[in-house]
Amino acid sequence: MARTPDTGSDVHRERHRAVLETAARLICEQGYEAASVQDIADACGLTKAGLYYYIRSKEDLLLEIMTYGMDIFEERVLLPVLAIADPVERLKACMEKNVHLVTEGWSKEVTIILHEHETLTGAARQQINARKKRYVRFLEASFDEAMREGRIRRVEPRVAAFSFLGMVLWIYKWFRPDGKIPADRLAAEMQDLFFGGLEIAPAPARRGAGGRRARSAKPAKHAGKGVAA
Amino acid sequence: MARTPDTGSDVHRERHRAVLETAARLICEQGYEAASVQDIADACGLTKAGLYYYIRSKEDLLLEIMTYGMDIFEERVLLPVLAIADPVERLKACMEKNVHLVTEGWSKEVTIILHEHETLTGAARQQINARKKRYVRFLEASFDEAMREGRIRRVEPRVAAFSFLGMVLWIYKWFRPDGKIPADRLAAEMQDLFFGGLEIAPAPARRGAGGRRARSAKPAKHAGKGVAA
Repeated sequence: MARTPDTGSDVHRERHRAVLETAARLICEQGYEAASVQDIADACGLTKAGLYYYIRSKEDLLLEIMTYGMDIFEERVLLPVLAIADPVERLKACMEKNVHLVTEGWSKEVTIILHEHETLTGAARQQINARKKRYVRFLEASFDEAMREGRIRRVEPRVAAFSFLGMVLWIYKWFRPDGKIPADRLAAEMQDLFFGGLEIAPAPARRGAGGRRARSAKPAKHAGKGVAA
Repeated sequence: MARTPDTGSDVHRERHRAVLETAARLICEQGYEAASVQDIADACGLTKAGLYYYIRSKEDLLLEIMTYGMDIFEERVLLPVLAIADPVERLKACMEKNVHLVTEGWSKEVTIILHEHETLTGAARQQINARKKRYVRFLEASFDEAMREGRIRRVEPRVAAFSFLGMVLWIYKWFRPDGKIPADRLAAEMQDLFFGGLEIAPAPARRGAGGRRARSAKPAKHAGKGVAA
């Protein structure tokens, strides 16, 4: 193994990774503005000058953490479900994987992506936003496909996509790993809530027709396609 | 009208209100840490010393803004629905009113409550958290009541409450007032999604029984009562 201090070496990569981990923990706990470069250097056991050997700037550090978080997200949530043919099964699997991502150890990078969504500026911000938007478009397209195939009722794909995201991503604000609801039960409950709905269909007496629940027979309120806020 | 500078006067109250408004706008735009007391003073057209005539400290200012936001929330969302007897109608009305609160002009105080949820410390934090928890408990109790009355399927009240909140509160991150989805359509879509569910019931052929959709006939997975993470 090369142990020279050039930036391509394994040692440099490992230390760089450790700096990102420590910085992510600090920024996650204190917020980006409150965590100073000095704080981050102290937590890494480096001088400020030493820290700048690994990072170009504080904003660049934030971009690196968010990029790492988006890599993890795409690897664990998006890529494994892309090939699922049925759009409803694809969305359900996606929800399950996203719940696990938010509730598990990767949550500090994910929390930073969610919480510091307006902190980056310029090209760095565009870069992260483009990756977030790709996820929103994937969800919208899956809801649209599920509608076209008659698998779900008519909805605004954009509202469905952001409702899905809201349910799943809000978890970072309230979930406690030592709480009474384990992550897999949480994922199953949310799938059930979102796709199955809550209300029990009114008794057939209210409407003559038996069979399907009243709701799915209701005429669609809006054309579901191509709508975007 | 008294125009003396004592803190009980109308003029003082008006100026104090204006300081809170300006500070809320700045903190909402820049974040609490990034917006300095000097920035807030400048935006108010006051010196720093002048600003401290209206506020005790920066953290106290944040508490005041959040308290104002919670007052507005309780006045516009919680109080009007408390008296609705049917728990499902109560929850639906609550969702509609909360969507409107987040999409309308009050959103800067609401955004600060949501975004700076870990910024306050000590007694100030407890004070705001107690009011937030009251809302969560109200939602949980309403879901629990709806289950007991056979109005909704069995769910974990805590997961249902935070899913409801996630859908509705996430709106502050993506909704644009000039977008294609007006607030009232958004509220109606979300009510429909959350309470009605998405999936179209499978054709009766899959299960012998007609009538209700298969889902509501499924045995409950968990006891719904008293569960909390």
